[in-house]
Amino acid sequence: MRHIFVIGIGAGDPDHLTLQAVKALARTDVFFILDKNEDRQDLIRLRRRMLAEHGRPGHRVVEAPDAERDRTTPAYAAAVDDWRVRRADLVEQLLSEHLGEGETGAFLVWGDPSLYDSVIAVVDDVLARGAVGFDYEVVPGISSVSALAARHRTTLTRVGRPVQITTGRRLAEGFPEGVDDVVVMLDGRAAFTGIDPDGLEIRYGAYLGTPDEILVAGPLAEAAPRISELRESARERKGWIMDTYLLRRSGS
Amino acid sequence: MRHIFVIGIGAGDPDHLTLQAVKALARTDVFFILDKNEDRQDLIRLRRRMLAEHGRPGHRVVEAPDAERDRTTPAYAAAVDDWRVRRADLVEQLLSEHLGEGETGAFLVWGDPSLYDSVIAVVDDVLARGAVGFDYEVVPGISSVSALAARHRTTLTRVGRPVQITTGRRLAEGFPEGVDDVVVMLDGRAAFTGIDPDGLEIRYGAYLGTPDEILVAGPLAEAAPRISELRESARERKGWIMDTYLLRRSGS
Ligand SMILES: C[S@@+](CC[C@H](N)C(=O)[O-])C[C@H]1O[C@@H](n2cnc3c(N)ncnc32)[C@H](O)[C@@H]1O
Ligand SMILES: C[S@@+](CC[C@H](N)C(=O)[O-])C[C@H]1O[C@@H](n2cnc3c(N)ncnc32)[C@H](O)[C@@H]1O
Repeated sequence: MRHIFVIGIGAGDPDHLTLQAVKALARTDVFFILDKNEDRQDLIRLRRRMLAEHGRPGHRVVEAPDAERDRTTPAYAAAVDDWRVRRADLVEQLLSEHLGEGETGAFLVWGDPSLYDSVIAVVDDVLARGAVGFDYEVVPGISSVSALAARHRTTLTRVGRPVQITTGRRLAEGFPEGVDDVVVMLDGRAAFTGIDPDGLEIRYGAYLGTPDEILVAGPLAEAAPRISELRESARERKGWIMDTYLLRRSGS
Repeated sequence: MRHIFVIGIGAGDPDHLTLQAVKALARTDVFFILDKNEDRQDLIRLRRRMLAEHGRPGHRVVEAPDAERDRTTPAYAAAVDDWRVRRADLVEQLLSEHLGEGETGAFLVWGDPSLYDSVIAVVDDVLARGAVGFDYEVVPGISSVSALAARHRTTLTRVGRPVQITTGRRLAEGFPEGVDDVVVMLDGRAAFTGIDPDGLEIRYGAYLGTPDEILVAGPLAEAAPRISELRESARERKGWIMDTYLLRRSGS
């Protein structure tokens, strides 16, 4: 039987790896890297370093350009469906070509595989098709959300109260109902600048866990312009940005 | 300068420890255990095992009965405030008595310190008082929420959509607004049995990461009675229960 690991590798610090992840890396014969034509050289280096340090001698690495999603079409749902099919085609082919019977393969996932990541879905799709047989296991990782909270030495939840994790796109439609603590991810457009800052505090983190880490905390009204500036100059310098933040309604 | 670590030790599996946590354990001179008159012998054993395996030779362990919260009073907020003060008194005293200048102390936190845990708050309180000087650092951990998702091989977030983390007490007041994916923690009373199950699926986990782990998944209407039975018999057998679950509104 083939075995597949989906391994959460943490959000940027190589020491985010869990002992469970280290053991899984050491048991893997073939690492599958679905490359998104990454311009993010630091991330590629981090991954390489983890494999060099924890991979077993003689492990193989199979890199393939990930299926591209058509982001130009207005038919969003259809485009996502089509992309899922092409991605499952790709992964199915990679597994049947490169993973022998009885071997162990792995997909490395940034942060924790449970948050805004599609690897579990594609592995499920391939498994459901039944053309390649395998069992698989998910190894949880430190998410950028946990890393954000730790670096700000804050909790996400206040006593007995909920927290919501959402996207920049959703936040742009308004502060969520029924919660006073909201973590925002995937915010390409600085949605925090577009909402009413009254009574809100922000705890912001970019490149968490890496040498480029940026942390800002304060009342949203004051902090938002400073964060916008910092993130624009960081984006220019590095060519990409990766950031997340907690918005907290104070005193309620 | 004294140094304090607040270390997330994962949700039950000793291999949830991160490399960062392992290094922090190895740098610690004094571990502070605020014991809640724990009847949970497995958890105490797990903690001991981690210290035996990763602690430095000669480390000290200081155990103290945690300040008790008055749960009988109707004055909930006042009781919580009073408890925080007594707890800060206790921690301040422990630090000044047992942690020498230049030494490193640590508090071990179940799961991730950012979720429904009060250690960061009490350390902040003690720091703000200024009587004992120290700097401190939070080491993120695998939360029971990440562990739940991994064991069910599911994501918490669907494409572009939010997830809310809340308590059993809140869920008992109704399914949260504006989200279709909800993780419930701290549910002593099986709140999942009291909500309209129509269109809901549950992914349930008890004692995650431990040899006693229980996993159940399915439509809530079918799964709820089975889970109630399992958790009651587990609670009887072990004397305590520790469980969490994801509720997902399907097809919306
Ligand atoms: C596709 S999602 C993947 C999330 C990942 N699975 C996790 O658990 O963190 C990418 C988003 O995660 C957040 N993110 C990931 N790594 C980050 C880091 N090191 N610092 C700040 N944000 C990060 C950003 O919001 C980014 O837009
Ligand atoms: C006081 S909170 C602490 C949460 C912890 N900080 C975390 O990150 O998981 C305790 C709650 O966490 C959940 N929990 C913690 N460990 C668990 C485990 N191993 N299995 C299932 N639920 C767990 C339960 O909902 C429990 O009521």
